[in-house]
Amino acid sequence: MKRDTLMQELWAEFFGTAILIIFGCGVVANVIFAPRLNGFGIFKTGAGYDWNTINVGWAFAVTMAVYVAGGITGAHLNPAVTLAAVLRRGMNFGKAIGYWIAQVLGAFVGAFIIHKIYLGNFIKDGYMNIFYTGAANDAYSIGNSIFAEIAGTFFLVLFIYAIVDSVYNLGPGANLWPLLVGFAVYSIGLSLGGPTGYAINPARDFGPRLFAAMIGDQGAFSGSYWLLVPIVGPLIGGPLGAYAYDYLVSPFLPKKMEESLKADKSMKA
Amino acid sequence: MKRDTLMQELWAEFFGTAILIIFGCGVVANVIFAPRLNGFGIFKTGAGYDWNTINVGWAFAVTMAVYVAGGITGAHLNPAVTLAAVLRRGMNFGKAIGYWIAQVLGAFVGAFIIHKIYLGNFIKDGYMNIFYTGAANDAYSIGNSIFAEIAGTFFLVLFIYAIVDSVYNLGPGANLWPLLVGFAVYSIGLSLGGPTGYAINPARDFGPRLFAAMIGDQGAFSGSYWLLVPIVGPLIGGPLGAYAYDYLVSPFLPKKMEESLKADKSMKA
Amino acid sequence: MKRDTLMQELWAEFFGTAILIIFGCGVVANVIFAPRLNGFGIFKTGAGYDWNTINVGWAFAVTMAVYVAGGITGAHLNPAVTLAAVLRRGMNFGKAIGYWIAQVLGAFVGAFIIHKIYLGNFIKDGYMNIFYTGAANDAYSIGNSIFAEIAGTFFLVLFIYAIVDSVYNLGPGANLWPLLVGFAVYSIGLSLGGPTGYAINPARDFGPRLFAAMIGDQGAFSGSYWLLVPIVGPLIGGPLGAYAYDYLVSPFLPKKMEESLKADKSMKA
Amino acid sequence: MKRDTLMQELWAEFFGTAILIIFGCGVVANVIFAPRLNGFGIFKTGAGYDWNTINVGWAFAVTMAVYVAGGITGAHLNPAVTLAAVLRRGMNFGKAIGYWIAQVLGAFVGAFIIHKIYLGNFIKDGYMNIFYTGAANDAYSIGNSIFAEIAGTFFLVLFIYAIVDSVYNLGPGANLWPLLVGFAVYSIGLSLGGPTGYAINPARDFGPRLFAAMIGDQGAFSGSYWLLVPIVGPLIGGPLGAYAYDYLVSPFLPKKMEESLKADKSMKA
Repeated sequence: MKRDTLMQELWAEFFGTAILIIFGCGVVANVIFAPRLNGFGIFKTGAGYDWNTINVGWAFAVTMAVYVAGGITGAHLNPAVTLAAVLRRGMNFGKAIGYWIAQVLGAFVGAFIIHKIYLGNFIKDGYMNIFYTGAANDAYSIGNSIFAEIAGTFFLVLFIYAIVDSVYNLGPGANLWPLLVGFAVYSIGLSLGGPTGYAINPARDFGPRLFAAMIGDQGAFSGSYWLLVPIVGPLIGGPLGAYAYDYLVSPFLPKKMEESLKADKSMKA
Repeated sequence: MKRDTLMQELWAEFFGTAILIIFGCGVVANVIFAPRLNGFGIFKTGAGYDWNTINVGWAFAVTMAVYVAGGITGAHLNPAVTLAAVLRRGMNFGKAIGYWIAQVLGAFVGAFIIHKIYLGNFIKDGYMNIFYTGAANDAYSIGNSIFAEIAGTFFLVLFIYAIVDSVYNLGPGANLWPLLVGFAVYSIGLSLGGPTGYAINPARDFGPRLFAAMIGDQGAFSGSYWLLVPIVGPLIGGPLGAYAYDYLVSPFLPKKMEESLKADKSMKA
Repeated sequence: MKRDTLMQELWAEFFGTAILIIFGCGVVANVIFAPRLNGFGIFKTGAGYDWNTINVGWAFAVTMAVYVAGGITGAHLNPAVTLAAVLRRGMNFGKAIGYWIAQVLGAFVGAFIIHKIYLGNFIKDGYMNIFYTGAANDAYSIGNSIFAEIAGTFFLVLFIYAIVDSVYNLGPGANLWPLLVGFAVYSIGLSLGGPTGYAINPARDFGPRLFAAMIGDQGAFSGSYWLLVPIVGPLIGGPLGAYAYDYLVSPFLPKKMEESLKADKSMKA
Repeated sequence: MKRDTLMQELWAEFFGTAILIIFGCGVVANVIFAPRLNGFGIFKTGAGYDWNTINVGWAFAVTMAVYVAGGITGAHLNPAVTLAAVLRRGMNFGKAIGYWIAQVLGAFVGAFIIHKIYLGNFIKDGYMNIFYTGAANDAYSIGNSIFAEIAGTFFLVLFIYAIVDSVYNLGPGANLWPLLVGFAVYSIGLSLGGPTGYAINPARDFGPRLFAAMIGDQGAFSGSYWLLVPIVGPLIGGPLGAYAYDYLVSPFLPKKMEESLKADKSMKA
């Protein structure tokens, strides 16, 4: 069976991004719509889920989505990663546009499924902002927020390129790189995620936001935040992270850079 | 010493599922019946355990049960996984019925042991619903709950099939797949577990529920929830996840599907 | 340089158990004597450490102690594991007594060091029960508590024997078994640890208890709890776990048992 | 392309330490300046981030920084580790001074970037002590605090030396030692981190403290705490940990010590 047809790759990006959103937006929905055990038991127990939960939830969302779809395309699941592949890994730009559409569609369908799973409380209360990111509070300006998204996505791609480089750098073997990429997302959420809620992935934010707008969230696309912060920011930061790895890390590793790139099977496109 | 006798396999399923329940229901019992450190110390400390604890506890319950019993049968420990093996991995249906009985008996005995360990507070207070799952609140209808269980078990089997596929997909090596399967359960609990408490395993729910009824919980089997949500839901979702992996992922991986299935030793039955 | 002299092995058990207690009792001291960030910051932050912290802390205490001392003796660090080795792995009983003494001394010295590190608040407040275990509340009888310790140590040794069996069972490769043994302790703490505080190791409880008595804790050895629950319980449960693995798991694995035991280098004594 | 030029190594130490601080100080900033979800949702959710978050955040900060820079220099990222390499791994002292300067500069720049990311709330509120460590409360004297830093850094280097010793001890394979070094830092934070906030790295404390002083924190360098506790303490403890591994662990491992040191590629300088 031939595998390198475009449709199969687009399917993998669609399916993987849908899984990413089902489990990523899912953990936020879980925290808000279905917390358990608050004040339950013969002793007072602690609160159910919290923001730490959300960080772990997104980390494993990435890991699991990559274990499912990664064997087919390497699992970009993120337009910023795909743009980096165009600029630094020789990916065809036409194909990249296909990836982008597949990723956004996957994210949209993922949001649809999460809406169905948490339907009971969605209907009753109508909280729709579990789907997309926003600033932590008014102290964070648009400029501040864009910078935070550029930084987060810069490190996302820098870490991914380092983690999958098992030939010349210290990338883990035994097919454990999807776990470590999940931990990279965990790390970014913990340390840089607060100001914006860390989209670090345009499809992750735009697809579910589109779904929210369709089910009646009128504020979803008000202003320019949705475009500048979770879309433009990552599309700048991701490629910068790829350049940083290729110019500021790779050349100083024991063997020369070009071979390292060829050996890097996980990022091929 | 011959190994492939049915009785040995049934024993492994019984013993593994008992461990799964001792550690799975055990963490819930621990949260409710034996929290520690609430308001202890010279400074006010945080609450003891919480719902996050329960997610981690179930994850490692799965991992440890698989490390013990997995070398014998691959450790289904779940009738939905066994049904998937009948439909997609050529398992004999008669043997599957044996597995189901062993799994339910193991879960029943696991509940019995947890009852003994947390005996002090069980006698005094009689909380029995640590044993089985239920809806988070009234907003979740039976239909909504069934859908959540189908979705959770769909992803459980999809993730397992991806994680153990170390030949054609990115399944981890070095015998680390039981750890990653535990993380898959963690991920499902974090992101999809709230609405129903994520049975995603008919034996996990039915065995301990039977035990609860026997020690006096009169509401254990009232209504049809116990049948439709934690039993029928997973028996639908699990096989769907297996079909999804075999038709929507495997065919698009580099090598052809049939060899991939033969090489997949962990799922053999 | 010859290595298999008894003194070197005893040193490894002493040093490893001291590390185990410094990090194990250390995390409890940290939770009680040095919590940070309570109500700090421009927004109200969550409480500092909690009981979940203690579970993770003990898990990594085990993992780190084994990475340091494990290359020398396999790192028993626990009289119950050593007794299991006498009964099931052909360890000499005279040597086992040496191990026991080294383990208790190591635990005593570990408690001494933690007392120095948290000195400021120890002097002021005198909480000494960070050193040894006790029942969660009055509902747990002595008999209940002994059963909980037997069960916890049974599974500790069962899990260890499964995890280090990388030849016939699914024990992880790449020298990751110390990490998984840490996760086994995490799992036991989460699911079975509440009733007694999970000693599951006579040296871990007796050594620090001795130190507490010496610095003035008059209740340390009152009653028979200290002997029956954290010492007798684990010494019963540990060997039972070893018998369970050797008679209820190993014989049903693909290859015959005796070779499996010879190949199991990690448990050799 | 030649790699072993000093400038490339200094760059790697600079870049790696900057990443360490961006993610390490970043998680503290996140907890204090951008907590999320406090009291959000239709049910009351738990608090956002807490001190546990900070422990995990620093652990993955180390892991990710090592995956990026580790292929070039082994990623010391810590003057105490570099001093240990001078005393026990034959590193040239002149080169070590270069490493120290690069590490402090990297930490300074890391603090600068975190200040930019959390700018909004920094301006408004001026909390600058997210950058450097301090005693948990008045009960901890300077002497107590120095001892805690010596102990923490002693174990940091002892654990690192054990974890990277995959030839004679149980160091993990498959390039997973950066993950385990992160877990070592996690363990130290959980169990020994409370009294001082665990600098265990002079550059980690001095670089960001310098930045804090430059943006107006007048108390940053008052007294002698900044010199004695987070700088002198680690510079004593780190080398002691290296001596402990080389004299108290290595000689008792199966093969003789000298070969073990030669084989230890990760620590070479």
